[in-house]
Amino acid sequence: MRARNLAVVLGEISRRQPVSRARLADVTGFTKTTVSSLVAALKDAGLIREDGPVRDGERGRPATAVSINGDRVAGLGLEVNVDYLAACVLDLGRRIRHRHIVAADNRGRAPEQVIGALTDLAERAIAAAADQGLTVAGAVVALPGTLDRAGGRVRTAPNLGWRDVAAGDLLAAGLPPLALPADQDNEANLAALGELWFGDGRELGSYVHVSGEIGVGAGIVVDGRVFRGAHGFAGELGHVVVDPAGPPCACGGRGCLEQVAGQEAILRAAGIPDVTGTSTAGPDGPLAALIALLRDGDEAALAAVRRAGEALGQALSAAVNLFDPDGIVLGGIFSALAPWASPAVEEALGGGTGVVRHTPPRLTVSRLGGDAAALGAAALVIERVMTDPARLLTEAPVRPRER
Amino acid sequence: MRARNLAVVLGEISRRQPVSRARLADVTGFTKTTVSSLVAALKDAGLIREDGPVRDGERGRPATAVSINGDRVAGLGLEVNVDYLAACVLDLGRRIRHRHIVAADNRGRAPEQVIGALTDLAERAIAAAADQGLTVAGAVVALPGTLDRAGGRVRTAPNLGWRDVAAGDLLAAGLPPLALPADQDNEANLAALGELWFGDGRELGSYVHVSGEIGVGAGIVVDGRVFRGAHGFAGELGHVVVDPAGPPCACGGRGCLEQVAGQEAILRAAGIPDVTGTSTAGPDGPLAALIALLRDGDEAALAAVRRAGEALGQALSAAVNLFDPDGIVLGGIFSALAPWASPAVEEALGGGTGVVRHTPPRLTVSRLGGDAAALGAAALVIERVMTDPARLLTEAPVRPRER
Repeated sequence: MRARNLAVVLGEISRRQPVSRARLADVTGFTKTTVSSLVAALKDAGLIREDGPVRDGERGRPATAVSINGDRVAGLGLEVNVDYLAACVLDLGRRIRHRHIVAADNRGRAPEQVIGALTDLAERAIAAAADQGLTVAGAVVALPGTLDRAGGRVRTAPNLGWRDVAAGDLLAAGLPPLALPADQDNEANLAALGELWFGDGRELGSYVHVSGEIGVGAGIVVDGRVFRGAHGFAGELGHVVVDPAGPPCACGGRGCLEQVAGQEAILRAAGIPDVTGTSTAGPDGPLAALIALLRDGDEAALAAVRRAGEALGQALSAAVNLFDPDGIVLGGIFSALAPWASPAVEEALGGGTGVVRHTPPRLTVSRLGGDAAALGAAALVIERVMTDPARLLTEAPVRPRER
Repeated sequence: MRARNLAVVLGEISRRQPVSRARLADVTGFTKTTVSSLVAALKDAGLIREDGPVRDGERGRPATAVSINGDRVAGLGLEVNVDYLAACVLDLGRRIRHRHIVAADNRGRAPEQVIGALTDLAERAIAAAADQGLTVAGAVVALPGTLDRAGGRVRTAPNLGWRDVAAGDLLAAGLPPLALPADQDNEANLAALGELWFGDGRELGSYVHVSGEIGVGAGIVVDGRVFRGAHGFAGELGHVVVDPAGPPCACGGRGCLEQVAGQEAILRAAGIPDVTGTSTAGPDGPLAALIALLRDGDEAALAAVRRAGEALGQALSAAVNLFDPDGIVLGGIFSALAPWASPAVEEALGGGTGVVRHTPPRLTVSRLGGDAAALGAAALVIERVMTDPARLLTEAPVRPRER
């Protein structure tokens, strides 16, 4: 119970800061004694700080207020993707304190090797946080695959060549002990969360965020929260069927979106050969080659991207009919391809969602950059601190007697 | 604040009944004085009742307990569908107290006429409730169309021929004043809620409930709550595209599920002629004719239903990939057609959702019967009473001083 009450008070402080203890008692319904005890515990843990006096509306005389303390506790976000590793540190006040991306071709490398390199990045990030007086409370790693989050395992990350990898254990073994256990999540979910905290998601509220490089994924945000589904597999946009007579997919279906709008499918259709096994990002990668062709007005490249946009719009119209979001954000490779793909996406969306809604949802392009998922991973750590601050408390969880 | 606290206490009583005031203070964090005041108000409103003494675990001596009172307050659920009207009364203890279905061909009838007939049904239900000592706190009407719930209007119900109808106002004008304002919702959402309260949904938790007669809709339930989307239009399964080269749909798309798996499309493909304008339900309706053909092993009928099942499975695999539910419940016409349609649905589902999940979601057939949406409408009234009991209180909302 005390753990829940700590979270309630911390949440109200975050929403109303600066805020007096008397006001916190009013809005939570707790007694002032209870509020004072909870506030003291949160302050001892470095999660909030005492501000100067604020004028309290009801009583008219100044009272000491409290606010979130952005200078003591931080979250570490990590990302493994096909072409790079990333780390970032976010403080409790939501400020980015450290951001680091390293190009790396992770395809076919042993998971131990990849997580080892990620651990190096994590250690540097923790040191950079310490230099700024920040203690990292926890770490979350974004991975491009389906995860068994409860078991801390990657079930399958086909584009990395991983299957049943205990990524959480590998990571935890390489990191110093943190207050919150290390956790992992799908890159699509975390990129959507990054968009919510630092991109267009703040205005949208409910949206579908398209991500992916080789694969096509989506993170679905409903009322400011990532929607994960009953088993954590929601948002598998890449396996929505767009052409029942299309090519077979590894998932067992036929004509899945990924078969038309995944990066390899686009490159193949554009006539850019032999992409498997090469790093796709960077100035010499095949994505750069594709964009160069698009800029030159190459017919095959334009047609491939247009066809991908149509298929993406068709799959998104299913998502719109089922989820009814406020907007759609194109991230991943589609943010780079947006100038050529967006018109086809919009046309397919407009055609398929007309009668039910007044207008199709707003289509925007992510401006977050490559490490959106790392930002989202750090945001998830901060979310956890906010919803379960009790884990960061050093005191014994004794509840003061009430009368 | 008091309104929220009343709901918190009523919710805990519902979850833990019978429960003592001391235990309620423990679990809510409110003072005993606050709990006693809230409990007294809920009891005065007839929402809870005093039970005999229960043994209180912590202190070891018996205390008076309180429980939900099922004998004072009820919810009225109403339904307008293409072929029938329905009403039902549910008490706060979730028992069905009254259930009434009347066949009626509502196609092309003026909304005033239809709502007038529904009001007669509602009055009889209210009288039947009163005979059992129950006061109806509110009414919700289920409608087959897209609704502007905030404005109390039906935007479009194509199979009734309605467009921009103030159904809420029409209904409220015909009913005696109730504590909660009359409300309306989509039949797909409410049938899914009915399934949650009285069907297989209780076990599933998160599921997609397929409904519809002429149209095809879905109600999506996530963790025991109906998912409505940002504007109330979620679950438009009928407009998921299953064949981009298929026939045009009224929504502006092509090859929407409804064009293949809607009742009229199935009847047409089965060679059952001239269905527009005739009542589809009942022993002489075309659905009965279709089922007779299926029982006789008619090739065209079997092929039409199999094709509808394939298309439904394909659209559902999109829903499964995006929502990741625990199960799927076939309601509406698909519960009657399930013996012939289910194998095709299962095959399409299994093919399209294999690699991501261990197993495809469980497919079940609704056993609720035709008035699932009316049951769900009554359940929605009870949900509202539970989440906002303050509206049923007669006392002035004065908050006791705390110190």
